[in-house]
Amino acid sequence: MSKAEKRAKFEKVYTVIRDELVEHIKAQGMPAEAIAWYTKNFDYNAPGGKLNRGLSVVDSVQILKGRALTDEEYFKSAVLGWCVELLQAFFLVSDDVMDSSITRRDQPCWYRNEGVGLIAINDAFLLEAAIYWLLKKHLRGDKSYINLVEAFHEASLQTEFGQLLDLITAPEDKVDLSKFSLERHRLIVLYKTAFYSFYLPVALAMYFSGISHQESQDPYALASSILLPLGEYFQVQDDYLDFAGTPEQIGKIGTDIIDNKCSWCINTALASANAEQRAVLDANYGRKDAAAEQRIKQIFNATGVHEKYAKYEEDAYKRIMGLIQTIPEAGLGAEGEVKLKREVFVSFLEKIYKRQK
Amino acid sequence: MSKAEKRAKFEKVYTVIRDELVEHIKAQGMPAEAIAWYTKNFDYNAPGGKLNRGLSVVDSVQILKGRALTDEEYFKSAVLGWCVELLQAFFLVSDDVMDSSITRRDQPCWYRNEGVGLIAINDAFLLEAAIYWLLKKHLRGDKSYINLVEAFHEASLQTEFGQLLDLITAPEDKVDLSKFSLERHRLIVLYKTAFYSFYLPVALAMYFSGISHQESQDPYALASSILLPLGEYFQVQDDYLDFAGTPEQIGKIGTDIIDNKCSWCINTALASANAEQRAVLDANYGRKDAAAEQRIKQIFNATGVHEKYAKYEEDAYKRIMGLIQTIPEAGLGAEGEVKLKREVFVSFLEKIYKRQK
Repeated sequence: MSKAEKRAKFEKVYTVIRDELVEHIKAQGMPAEAIAWYTKNFDYNAPGGKLNRGLSVVDSVQILKGRALTDEEYFKSAVLGWCVELLQAFFLVSDDVMDSSITRRDQPCWYRNEGVGLIAINDAFLLEAAIYWLLKKHLRGDKSYINLVEAFHEASLQTEFGQLLDLITAPEDKVDLSKFSLERHRLIVLYKTAFYSFYLPVALAMYFSGISHQESQDPYALASSILLPLGEYFQVQDDYLDFAGTPEQIGKIGTDIIDNKCSWCINTALASANAEQRAVLDANYGRKDAAAEQRIKQIFNATGVHEKYAKYEEDAYKRIMGLIQTIPEAGLGAEGEVKLKREVFVSFLEKIYKRQK
Repeated sequence: MSKAEKRAKFEKVYTVIRDELVEHIKAQGMPAEAIAWYTKNFDYNAPGGKLNRGLSVVDSVQILKGRALTDEEYFKSAVLGWCVELLQAFFLVSDDVMDSSITRRDQPCWYRNEGVGLIAINDAFLLEAAIYWLLKKHLRGDKSYINLVEAFHEASLQTEFGQLLDLITAPEDKVDLSKFSLERHRLIVLYKTAFYSFYLPVALAMYFSGISHQESQDPYALASSILLPLGEYFQVQDDYLDFAGTPEQIGKIGTDIIDNKCSWCINTALASANAEQRAVLDANYGRKDAAAEQRIKQIFNATGVHEKYAKYEEDAYKRIMGLIQTIPEAGLGAEGEVKLKREVFVSFLEKIYKRQK
């Protein structure tokens, strides 16, 4: 199946669960106006992204089972995938409010729609609540049910820790580079992104495939030891492309410098800037000013951000590939169970390595 | 034990779980600044209310068990109670942002604290996430665990439906009384308040006490059939006191009229206003203007809101007492199980009937 066909099949499941959610609010006796609002909230915010997180649940289940999925297995995996996309939508809708963002996925942020405003906060809650309603509806009978529910709880909490750290480290309106460091950047990325975007989809696939926790050599601990660095690498790439990628290439205009983001680039520049360069960074970072942005970019170039990124990428690739090799060739897991396989991770890494957008 | 002693005992459990939550974020390797912020978020927002919802979990468990609780039973019931208070804190912190409120519990709303602002949204998420972290920590071994988790999910969703309905019915900045009605009011109250404030605490106590669902005469359905009307009655009272109570009596200045709230009073007035009175209501409701507020109050008086409230209260009391009598004298539940008892509900109703604040 081509990538486009995979996506189209996955999107069909969205229409099914969207209809179920809408039927449910209808059944509460809510007026038409509320039903229409609720429906628009989902259609505006849940689909429309790259769907990588959601699709990776389905892909991982397929790799783990090592055979074509039955219709029921496919549907349930896709529901799990859409639950990850709903978690993502919950975070994006509320992050946009917190960050006063303007656009998201080439359209105005949800809260900037006529009449929405801060009602977007409750709409974000409704996206989150849909996760648990769908898990109960479709997976309550499954042995993995409680583990799936807890995986979402845990990923939410970790992401919220990361968001807290990001918000207090880099408030949009108050530049203080003394709070920045590569170590701080790593911690933010791990919690704010890597956990729910990389570990969660695979952990869900593992639970759904019947892989159990083990006292020694826990497959979940091993998966996390590979996926968290992978997520970190992905985010460093993202940060680098925001600075170095052209709009034609990355499909958007990078705004990390202007937005005072605690990105890998600024932290890398800070780590090797001399006093003079540091003064330029302090005076110009996070300012809504194209000339200031240019001065920052010059320091990034002068402190060797491009070269350091090239080296980071090569090192990350090798390091992660090395971690993947720690999984036994025959897979890891209890006897008679589905085994955790290297391929789950290799397919991830190959998709990310040297990506240009 | 006096009411104050009960409260003090319950508050001690807060300090235990607060310390556990703080230990947990510390263990993630978060910097001191993030730990301090997280701690302040909890201490500012979780305790400090009337704690009625939380205490009613403990009270209900005690009534259901019909004996003094062991230390462990008390502690777990109190954790459940604090989880309800955390749910409440999650809603209050975010509602205050959505409603642009100024004060809460006699102090500035959390988001209005120096440097907080919209970070309050993520702080609200963290209050919510703590519920599931605490349930997992203290109740994962309990037979009722999954039911407890699902009860929180369901109550959250219902409350968010209610909040959606309230926000689109009565936006603070756009008065349109044609959207109001007593029926709409009832629906908002049921979803936005009654479910999580009245049904949830008792349902948690029931699950924790080992009461199971039944095909015919389900104790949970019966409890909800009493507690939802009870919650509705409570909110009608609240709305009436906002209009008719003196600040000395209710401890705050009523602002429902100025804030364009879809309250029981405006809906009752609308239901019997003549054309002339209706015009005054349309022209003056929801305006930030003391003279307009006085004109609304005159119409409330002229349309008999006081008399209608007195009648509503008598009727509600009798109706709910009648519902309570449908519970068998010996209690309701499966053989050999803890039984649902009338006293759970009577004690609620007596606390509320003719309250003045």
